[in-house]
Amino acid sequence: MKEWLDTTIKALNLVDSMNQPDGFTRLGYSEEELEAMNVFRNVAESLGLTVRRDQAGNLFARWDGETDHVVMTGSHLDTVENGGGYDGAAGILCSLGAVKTLKDHGFSPHHSIEVVCFASEESARFGVSTIGSKSVAGILDKTIEKVTDRHGTSVKEAVESTILNWSTVQHAERSQDDILSFIELHIEQGTQIEDHGARFGIVRGVACPIRLKVKVEGMAGHTGTTPMGKRTDALVAIAPLISFVSEKAEEFSRQSPKPLVATVSTLNVKPDVMNVIPGYVEAGIDIRSVDDDLKRLMSDKIIEKCRSLENDFNVTIKVETLVDNPSILLDGELTARVKGAGESLGYPSHEMDSGAGHDVMNMAAKWPSALVFIPCEKGISHHPMEHSTLKDLSMGVEILAEVLKQEAGE
Amino acid sequence: MKEWLDTTIKALNLVDSMNQPDGFTRLGYSEEELEAMNVFRNVAESLGLTVRRDQAGNLFARWDGETDHVVMTGSHLDTVENGGGYDGAAGILCSLGAVKTLKDHGFSPHHSIEVVCFASEESARFGVSTIGSKSVAGILDKTIEKVTDRHGTSVKEAVESTILNWSTVQHAERSQDDILSFIELHIEQGTQIEDHGARFGIVRGVACPIRLKVKVEGMAGHTGTTPMGKRTDALVAIAPLISFVSEKAEEFSRQSPKPLVATVSTLNVKPDVMNVIPGYVEAGIDIRSVDDDLKRLMSDKIIEKCRSLENDFNVTIKVETLVDNPSILLDGELTARVKGAGESLGYPSHEMDSGAGHDVMNMAAKWPSALVFIPCEKGISHHPMEHSTLKDLSMGVEILAEVLKQEAGE
Repeated sequence: MKEWLDTTIKALNLVDSMNQPDGFTRLGYSEEELEAMNVFRNVAESLGLTVRRDQAGNLFARWDGETDHVVMTGSHLDTVENGGGYDGAAGILCSLGAVKTLKDHGFSPHHSIEVVCFASEESARFGVSTIGSKSVAGILDKTIEKVTDRHGTSVKEAVESTILNWSTVQHAERSQDDILSFIELHIEQGTQIEDHGARFGIVRGVACPIRLKVKVEGMAGHTGTTPMGKRTDALVAIAPLISFVSEKAEEFSRQSPKPLVATVSTLNVKPDVMNVIPGYVEAGIDIRSVDDDLKRLMSDKIIEKCRSLENDFNVTIKVETLVDNPSILLDGELTARVKGAGESLGYPSHEMDSGAGHDVMNMAAKWPSALVFIPCEKGISHHPMEHSTLKDLSMGVEILAEVLKQEAGE
Repeated sequence: MKEWLDTTIKALNLVDSMNQPDGFTRLGYSEEELEAMNVFRNVAESLGLTVRRDQAGNLFARWDGETDHVVMTGSHLDTVENGGGYDGAAGILCSLGAVKTLKDHGFSPHHSIEVVCFASEESARFGVSTIGSKSVAGILDKTIEKVTDRHGTSVKEAVESTILNWSTVQHAERSQDDILSFIELHIEQGTQIEDHGARFGIVRGVACPIRLKVKVEGMAGHTGTTPMGKRTDALVAIAPLISFVSEKAEEFSRQSPKPLVATVSTLNVKPDVMNVIPGYVEAGIDIRSVDDDLKRLMSDKIIEKCRSLENDFNVTIKVETLVDNPSILLDGELTARVKGAGESLGYPSHEMDSGAGHDVMNMAAKWPSALVFIPCEKGISHHPMEHSTLKDLSMGVEILAEVLKQEAGE
């Protein structure tokens, strides 16, 4: 199995070695994502599964059981820019590995099993995440069609570039009756499993983010001829907000039983040339906590700070809320069974919350869903150094195989 | 003349109206700069001048006198991104207008007159300024050939895309004997002329910048799963430097008789996506003062601050000095004659320093040179709202015509 895992993780990542200094870049609805999905299709077919692509570009690899009800598992193959090769891919790999294990052991499913590869999970390209799983759960907001990436390509154009028709994307929705449960395996992207001496994590809730776009309007001017006292430099005006977000999040985390994280993760200066004072700055802020009230309080504090910076620096600051979703609780019973399955194999578990959003949060809106974490080294993720060991991936396969056996068996 | 000025400034800017909300974008060695230079060629030829292009892409429009010695005037037609239509273009316009005035009045030059349109004056594209005039003065550092713009195009590639050969760029150098004097007219890009109740500025010295590139290496990570206490966020680390540069420059300006300005003008965050902690930030800092010691002290303070931020935030900060040139003094005698010429026409002058670099600073390294400023409204420059009135442009034509008559006459 380890050799198969090693070969297959490289194949899914379109490389000969997982050691890639620049990491992996497969944005949602890009050529690169499609190419990786084609590898998924080939591997699934070689395992005897039947693969179909839905109207949102998700792939489903099906193992027909005696009933048409589906136990589903899977994740995604898109990445952030210069990201790692395990975020998403580990879930795809372990799901396929679990099917392989069950096939090797002559298992015959009562309910049908599907391994799903969701399209465009990351928000890296459009600032909108989990487009594929939202479509399956029937909660896609079609007004995102005009949202553009940094090159001006819209969601609609990107989707249609992959030979899909945006006007039928909503037909990707699956009916409630169709699916019995969904189990996602993902890398932890943190160090709580290790910190608690466990081998895998079992997730109770997913902290969905509040995302803010902050637009600062100052006045451009020549850096050499505009005296310091006559400037309205948009970057100087916004700089204290960067420190504020970091310091306030630390303060809130110390004071609250549930942690909060907040990040100024994007920042664009215009015109961004050496001899011109920044006239305009746009910053993106990501705030997360499973404590929704705390998350909203943080957002309010940021808006308050922006008002005071407006006064101090004589600029105009607009704050737009891009995303504000409540946290998601996963299915208690399914979660308990998944935890039990892992522990029955001898792996100690750690119950935790997820600071990152995953496809499972959309599936959980409609079907009983669970999320399993396996460790990634030092918690490093969204980075070329992101890594999960073959030992942990093998464990993931074992756990998923056990879960599928229980959930899809008689 | 005003009608000619109005028509010609629009033609040089390739527009029907100077009111352009997005301003003007003609980067050095771009299609757009070439197009504007072709308009220059056409206007100059319509005035009876003979135009040639040198090995660096500069255009010289020549009016042969009785001697081969040249009195030269001119400026540039490239712009920053989304800049104004007068920075550079005003000097080109007034130089051509002065020739037209002298021709209309039947003037016959003793020495030859050349109107020069220098290539690539702005540092907006490559972070390197005045490539054309450096070539003419023989002080071009050819190792800049590998410096790239944000799209990865090198200086060499850009120059060669305009049908020039980089290997012969040094042949653009003019000999010492060839040129008697150089007089540039430029918009002030500040408000000192107006603040002192004058009509034009006469420049004693040009404050050349120190330019620093600051590279901050932190660690990328998932915004949702990396606890605040476990981060090394490159943007959080550099944020206090932005405030520091602004505050320290204000403090130095208050304490010193000669003002200092300093600006964090460029800032690039990597990977710059919503759910990834900034792992790397690169910032560009521009420092100017005619007091070179003060300028260097400011640079030292910035480097010192970076060392302390390295400690505070556990990041690695590298500071690279891109440019550090001493300030330039212009020719005292020529400057006095230019000042006298303007005042003889009834225009009060203001003696001042220039906070911005101009082509004249390279020409001054080899030939007696002078710099005349005309006002631009509210001092706004490098911005779509940059504007000089037809009244001030007409004055510029009159002053340059008077200067050329004196310098190129018998």
